[in-house]
Amino acid sequence: MSEAYRLLSQIVNPLDLKKFSDPELHEVAKEVRQAILDKISQTGGHFSSNLGTVELTVALYAAFDMPPDKVIWDTGHQAYPHKLLTGRLPRFETMRKHRGLSGFLKRDEHELDAFGAGHAGTAISAALGFAEARDQLGTKERIVAVTGDAAICAGMSWEALNHAGELNTDMTVVLNDNRMSIAPNVGALTSYFTRLRSRPYVQDIAQRAKGIIERIPGPAPRIAAGLRHGVTHYFAPESTGTIFEEMGFEYIGPVDGHDLQTLLEIFRNLRDVPGPKFVHAITVKGKGYEVAEEDATKWHGVVPFDVAACELPKKSSTRAYTQVFGDAMIELADQDDKVLAITAAMPDGTGLIGFSQKHPDKYYDTGIAEQHAVTFAAGLAAGGLKPFCTIYSTFLQRGYDQVLHDVCIQNLPVRFCMDRAGLVGDDGPTHHGTFDISFLTHIPKMTLIAPRDATELREMMGFMADYNKGPIAIRYPRGGVPENLPESRSPIEYGRAEVLGIPGVPRGQEGRPDVVIVAIGSMVTEAWTAAQQLADEGVKALVINARWCKPIDIDTIGAWAAKTNHVITIEENVRIGGFGQQLRDQLGDASIFPARFEIMSLPDDWVEHGTQPIIRGEHGLNADHLVKQVKRSRANSGLA
Amino acid sequence: MSEAYRLLSQIVNPLDLKKFSDPELHEVAKEVRQAILDKISQTGGHFSSNLGTVELTVALYAAFDMPPDKVIWDTGHQAYPHKLLTGRLPRFETMRKHRGLSGFLKRDEHELDAFGAGHAGTAISAALGFAEARDQLGTKERIVAVTGDAAICAGMSWEALNHAGELNTDMTVVLNDNRMSIAPNVGALTSYFTRLRSRPYVQDIAQRAKGIIERIPGPAPRIAAGLRHGVTHYFAPESTGTIFEEMGFEYIGPVDGHDLQTLLEIFRNLRDVPGPKFVHAITVKGKGYEVAEEDATKWHGVVPFDVAACELPKKSSTRAYTQVFGDAMIELADQDDKVLAITAAMPDGTGLIGFSQKHPDKYYDTGIAEQHAVTFAAGLAAGGLKPFCTIYSTFLQRGYDQVLHDVCIQNLPVRFCMDRAGLVGDDGPTHHGTFDISFLTHIPKMTLIAPRDATELREMMGFMADYNKGPIAIRYPRGGVPENLPESRSPIEYGRAEVLGIPGVPRGQEGRPDVVIVAIGSMVTEAWTAAQQLADEGVKALVINARWCKPIDIDTIGAWAAKTNHVITIEENVRIGGFGQQLRDQLGDASIFPARFEIMSLPDDWVEHGTQPIIRGEHGLNADHLVKQVKRSRANSGLA
Repeated sequence: MSEAYRLLSQIVNPLDLKKFSDPELHEVAKEVRQAILDKISQTGGHFSSNLGTVELTVALYAAFDMPPDKVIWDTGHQAYPHKLLTGRLPRFETMRKHRGLSGFLKRDEHELDAFGAGHAGTAISAALGFAEARDQLGTKERIVAVTGDAAICAGMSWEALNHAGELNTDMTVVLNDNRMSIAPNVGALTSYFTRLRSRPYVQDIAQRAKGIIERIPGPAPRIAAGLRHGVTHYFAPESTGTIFEEMGFEYIGPVDGHDLQTLLEIFRNLRDVPGPKFVHAITVKGKGYEVAEEDATKWHGVVPFDVAACELPKKSSTRAYTQVFGDAMIELADQDDKVLAITAAMPDGTGLIGFSQKHPDKYYDTGIAEQHAVTFAAGLAAGGLKPFCTIYSTFLQRGYDQVLHDVCIQNLPVRFCMDRAGLVGDDGPTHHGTFDISFLTHIPKMTLIAPRDATELREMMGFMADYNKGPIAIRYPRGGVPENLPESRSPIEYGRAEVLGIPGVPRGQEGRPDVVIVAIGSMVTEAWTAAQQLADEGVKALVINARWCKPIDIDTIGAWAAKTNHVITIEENVRIGGFGQQLRDQLGDASIFPARFEIMSLPDDWVEHGTQPIIRGEHGLNADHLVKQVKRSRANSGLA
Repeated sequence: MSEAYRLLSQIVNPLDLKKFSDPELHEVAKEVRQAILDKISQTGGHFSSNLGTVELTVALYAAFDMPPDKVIWDTGHQAYPHKLLTGRLPRFETMRKHRGLSGFLKRDEHELDAFGAGHAGTAISAALGFAEARDQLGTKERIVAVTGDAAICAGMSWEALNHAGELNTDMTVVLNDNRMSIAPNVGALTSYFTRLRSRPYVQDIAQRAKGIIERIPGPAPRIAAGLRHGVTHYFAPESTGTIFEEMGFEYIGPVDGHDLQTLLEIFRNLRDVPGPKFVHAITVKGKGYEVAEEDATKWHGVVPFDVAACELPKKSSTRAYTQVFGDAMIELADQDDKVLAITAAMPDGTGLIGFSQKHPDKYYDTGIAEQHAVTFAAGLAAGGLKPFCTIYSTFLQRGYDQVLHDVCIQNLPVRFCMDRAGLVGDDGPTHHGTFDISFLTHIPKMTLIAPRDATELREMMGFMADYNKGPIAIRYPRGGVPENLPESRSPIEYGRAEVLGIPGVPRGQEGRPDVVIVAIGSMVTEAWTAAQQLADEGVKALVINARWCKPIDIDTIGAWAAKTNHVITIEENVRIGGFGQQLRDQLGDASIFPARFEIMSLPDDWVEHGTQPIIRGEHGLNADHLVKQVKRSRANSGLA
């Protein structure tokens, strides 16, 4: 291993930190920061959040005994230092690459990845589970949850604090408070945290209290005694009574999260304090890399860049769905006063930054609070407005009950816009949006659509703005919009699919197609490309752009299915409860049984991370596989 | 209308309360309480919660202008006084009867039912939506949310408080603090509320401060000024700094929620105070009916009873699934130290009361916090234990993302036990557990089973205790266990259905059945009864107890489907994403196409309330309909 990582390269697991003196631990921290700079600038990945947790992680891991102690990280993208301190430096260059290290914690990647997470707010619940399991089994390991100031505002974090405070379990919650999640934070608690932050640092209080402490015999018990009841409790009684204390935690903080020496002292003393403890550390996102400190949002997730240049490469000029969506939202609100946009802490990722600037009064950011965001939207709709509730497919899972119970039972016209529907690529299984067809279409009153390209996304959003009869959702993928599809378009009509036809054959002259490909959303471009290739080989493949996942246009699709021996459906969703399965059921009820009916979809298994093209290819969801599938089936069944 | 309701019978909507003097409002409150006693003792329904909200509702509705003001009730089962004050006294005898009044608020039942809810924790989110819609539209109505001390611990309530505090919207949150939800409350916040409650009542403070107040000119501004900054702020500064104030709310309380006169004064002044306000009212569940005050849990929901006798009729002696489950849990924990039970605030409803007494150290009640409950269970499982996470089917919807993201991605062996799967009856659409096959089976790694009767429930739970390979869920219905099924049983094997055969025909001699009925869970008893009736008419109906919703036993079912012209599936779940649709897909892939394949399931629409037999019948999910369906299909297709 390189000389640059003299100490870090000796660390196989965190117990190895015990070999080092405190000055050496300072070196380790420097090397960890350097490794993140060196490696992530080459591979890309989550960046500024990880620069912020370097000292916190080194101090925590040096103070505790891991294994058997366990640290549960809330949302793994702040845990690269954890990966480096658990022997993964040699593999760090494979970060987020296909079959390489995951950008998040993963139980099957490393035994010290105690609990994986890509959605925020789960760590305290999981840590409480580990802590209670320990007490049930009579073992003695210590349990720590590291959460963030955005994640702690997620409802389930509060539920967990409430339960932990009641159970009075031995565990430590570390709040890594960097004053923002991905985007600047929102919510009343944010101002509350600001007030907490304005209190004197533990460091300063300790200084003030030095005289008092020195009268207590023995150094460790001295500080422990202070910590035991909260340093602030003893030495700054005017600063007690935090929300966390109300919930039964010992609150220790605020503390400078980059002051390694103080962190070491706090954690070394805290290890042996019983009950639920809460350490509030203030960190700086992007710490140690000046431009990232200044614009942490921009540097949250990065593509490969030149460290010395302090510049991120320009984003590719491919037009992305996200951008088309953001522009269309602005236009809709320009035209219709009732149009509003809601995001749950993702103004940038959902493309709403422009909207928030152009229509600040029509824009709501709820923070990481998808449940509330959905029911808030239900209230807005019941109040006569047109809310566009803009949440990634994977995060809308958090609001499933609210979609069902608050929106759909009451048939309220909330518009759900699900970016990142389908395979998202590098973020992997916690982020793939491959379930929404299954979790939305079985809910009565829901309508679900998917556009084939940028123009159709805009047209569908116009349709959604006008559609006031009930809930409606749209799914569109991560990435660029396809440019290869026919420009002639049929207008968006409720429940009507669009027949794109057979490439090269004038509409109306298709006769009996050799195969009918029914594609939804992102797969329409693949289907059309496949049909073009098949046309070159003399196979007449008719492509239907299904448009409506619910209700399925059984009239149009059924009519074509009845004219062919071979139907293939293709969708970027799991098979169970997906489009193909539902179409097959409806065709069966209509007594339409093509000789072959094939469903191309995602398997009933977790899909790992990797670039979109790689993992789509692995699961057969592209034009090449579609062509192969058609040819194979025709050969096997004697259709060819 | 009866003389008993002299004033109440004149009230068509809450504006009519304006006609009454304060002494008359006291009469109205008495009549409301009397009506609840009179009517609910005849019809059954939610009881003690509604006796607790009488004065709160009368005061609120007399003080505000409704319409256009709106009150959003968290979980409608505390809102019978609302129904009585909105002109529904004449229909009150139809409470929870089929096609009668719903036990909850319903937007299509009454225009003043602003927002319906059967799941807890939604009111503040919805109210914030209404309040923001008002501000967007420039109207002036006031918005009030009434929540409970259990509902406010649900994560989404916190998310909503956080957002409301930040937006600084004009709205009022009333906390109806009756110190319990359905069961006694849990969580650290409960002790926090206890501390708040121990503060002097607003009433007493006002008394103490009378002298000061009297120096301010004019009575209304005087009190308003006090309220504006929180009475406690001015007159009991030692009692400020509540969590709600930290979140940006004016906190007013605690106040005696049965002191109508004080409530009237507070609400009349509060109407015109801007910003987010929080009124903390202490009420007594069951107020005014002594035995219900003493045991509010017992009197939470009642069957018809004799008011004078102060006794609830003995519960029917039918053995319910809930009870079988509770007993089996105790036995499992007796045998295996690693078995734990988790409930989310429903120890009674889930049948865990006995377990909580026998194994208090193995029992966790998280409060209304399904999200946390699921991820907490994931942590326990990752820590080496065998958690049985016991949540009604409808409430597990709240934990969908956690089941997917925390449990299934990590393939952790959490056991989910879903009581009330299928149609629940009187509680209606917010409570029917008719989606779980659809929302669980599409999640990779999940296993889902359903027992046919009590013995099978016990055997399956034993299987679950031993099954450590990944997540597994079991669904069973509300109500009694069937007694009509064959006692001969095949052992529970992973992924293996049980062939019950044709009534009266020895196993192995079935030949080619006229129809194969594949039934799951609660529908097996109906299928067997139908098969018996069909046998009497000479139709050979073979019944398969599917047992496994996932994975479906395609080998067994496929083999029988290949031997018949007619397959019917029957399940108490919606059709989309359900068992039948998945089986049809799998049979298709196996090239098994019976001449007729029919799915009996719930429609793609909301199912209203009514007794289980009535609504099962309305949707064809019983033996009679199954017999008719078989005969009709045979007649139509010439099979007969």
